[in-house]
Amino acid sequence: MSIRIGILGYGNLGRGIEVAVRDAEDMELVAVFTRRNPDSVKIRTGNVPVVSVQEIDEWKDKIDILVLCGGSATDLPEQTPKYATMFNVIDSFDTHARIPEHFAAVNEAANKSGHIAVISVGWDPGMFSVQRAYANAILPDGGDYTFWGKGVSQGHSDAIRRIKGVKDARQYTIPKEDALKKVREGSLPDLSTRDKHLRECYVVLEDGADAAAVENEIKTMPNYFADYDTIVHFISEEEMKRDHSGLAHGGFVIRTGKTGFDKEHNHVIEYSLKLDSNPEFTTSVLIAYARAAYRMKNEGQTGCKTVLDIPPAYLLTQSGEELRAHLL
Amino acid sequence: MSIRIGILGYGNLGRGIEVAVRDAEDMELVAVFTRRNPDSVKIRTGNVPVVSVQEIDEWKDKIDILVLCGGSATDLPEQTPKYATMFNVIDSFDTHARIPEHFAAVNEAANKSGHIAVISVGWDPGMFSVQRAYANAILPDGGDYTFWGKGVSQGHSDAIRRIKGVKDARQYTIPKEDALKKVREGSLPDLSTRDKHLRECYVVLEDGADAAAVENEIKTMPNYFADYDTIVHFISEEEMKRDHSGLAHGGFVIRTGKTGFDKEHNHVIEYSLKLDSNPEFTTSVLIAYARAAYRMKNEGQTGCKTVLDIPPAYLLTQSGEELRAHLL
Repeated sequence: MSIRIGILGYGNLGRGIEVAVRDAEDMELVAVFTRRNPDSVKIRTGNVPVVSVQEIDEWKDKIDILVLCGGSATDLPEQTPKYATMFNVIDSFDTHARIPEHFAAVNEAANKSGHIAVISVGWDPGMFSVQRAYANAILPDGGDYTFWGKGVSQGHSDAIRRIKGVKDARQYTIPKEDALKKVREGSLPDLSTRDKHLRECYVVLEDGADAAAVENEIKTMPNYFADYDTIVHFISEEEMKRDHSGLAHGGFVIRTGKTGFDKEHNHVIEYSLKLDSNPEFTTSVLIAYARAAYRMKNEGQTGCKTVLDIPPAYLLTQSGEELRAHLL
Repeated sequence: MSIRIGILGYGNLGRGIEVAVRDAEDMELVAVFTRRNPDSVKIRTGNVPVVSVQEIDEWKDKIDILVLCGGSATDLPEQTPKYATMFNVIDSFDTHARIPEHFAAVNEAANKSGHIAVISVGWDPGMFSVQRAYANAILPDGGDYTFWGKGVSQGHSDAIRRIKGVKDARQYTIPKEDALKKVREGSLPDLSTRDKHLRECYVVLEDGADAAAVENEIKTMPNYFADYDTIVHFISEEEMKRDHSGLAHGGFVIRTGKTGFDKEHNHVIEYSLKLDSNPEFTTSVLIAYARAAYRMKNEGQTGCKTVLDIPPAYLLTQSGEELRAHLL
């Protein structure tokens, strides 16, 4: 029997889930829920209804895992605890600083209703967290470094777009090669914000806007840019559309550490991602953890879990026997 | 209370475990067991007894986890099932093809006696298996590639040493840069054995041995060298000792795969290790999984487990709350 998947929210993430479910042999998409008028939402899978979120409680017994595809700023803090009272849920909540409170709210709701909830699934938090966990456990005497990019930062792009005179903007976060090199050498370098990442901005101006003033406002913006080396390019709308529509991203988690009676041996563990589509990779991770959530629920587990609580074997369709024979 | 660790076998792995336990805040070494005369074995930790393996059953209630540091060829197939009847055990059994039968024997013994056993812990099998599992789960439509090296292969070095006229030998397995490059491009290349790795051999000859004959015998040896590009260097005993005593190793696990409605997006997941000491890294992994074994045992779990069955959080000393706040 297939794992019955529901999607709440049909943006980049929702569309990615739709494709990942299509490609998963053990899953089927049963409904897409939307806050919009359902008639206005066209999905790509035939014979699957688009349903108003107002009617979601009628689907309680028809869905095994509801994948929440909202944003972390305002959607998920409300949605995940709310829907954990009715469904087994999974989200990609990615505001690191607020994970403890999100966990507490979701855990309470899921435990009370007897459901499983998995939060903060994706690549960071998500696969990068898993890598940090393994590497810290193996090399307790060391340090780890996370680099992001090259890829678009939505938050930084939005910050530029709010500047007067800016019509559109895209900001790439780029790890500095020199910093990566130092980290890999195992010297545990003390790296400042400026040392680790470069910020490269592509900006389309409104007619008559003052380029120098915009550039200055970007480069001196506290928190977002002031602590970084920032490069600003002014381009046309056509160039923006042609060259900067991609959703590529990636990054590195590197931990180096020492072992030995006299700490004479150095080790480097490196994990890297190079992604053509940030949202599709995120949804591929979500779907693997949806499979795990289904299995945990069938074992009678309830409450909130994160990627750190889930064994790798739970993400795969194969039996333990097959995995030991072919993958271990 | 500390986790009480016992070591069986005091070679490279046993010594590595000793150091890793010293560096683990939640563990203490309580005894080292040996098949040799205990008086002949000097360990580096003060006030810890070296005990004949004949007397190991007297230690049943004094040890939480017994770490088996024998070899995979003949020691572990016998030792792990045997000692799983008396102790919670962990081993680094690394003969991939025989894992299913090893698992079956250990699982039966551990279940019968009510102990936990964790097998095949290290880096391959071990951390590389974990990486293959995650990457396969996330990118089902793709392929993965494992490369080993640069590092000494014990089996291949031994094979050269068995050739008549060879006094000593060291064989390095080296991944080919060109193959790594092709794999990272995401084209899922079809790579032969020869395409992936190079074998570089350093050989000390006996007096009067025929170098050309030895070189030919190495290069044409079935299974070990015939299918590879093999380079042979003849060196002196002094050079061998000076330049080839290290235990460095490493490798790469790379999976590339496609997502998207039309499979238009490519993704690269890469995990790499660069290790100054192969045995010390292996023992660092073993000690992290010994911590997990202790926790599983306290939860009442029994039977045989592998790295694929164990959540990352179990490897760490921190609470779930601390991990969510600082590492997730």
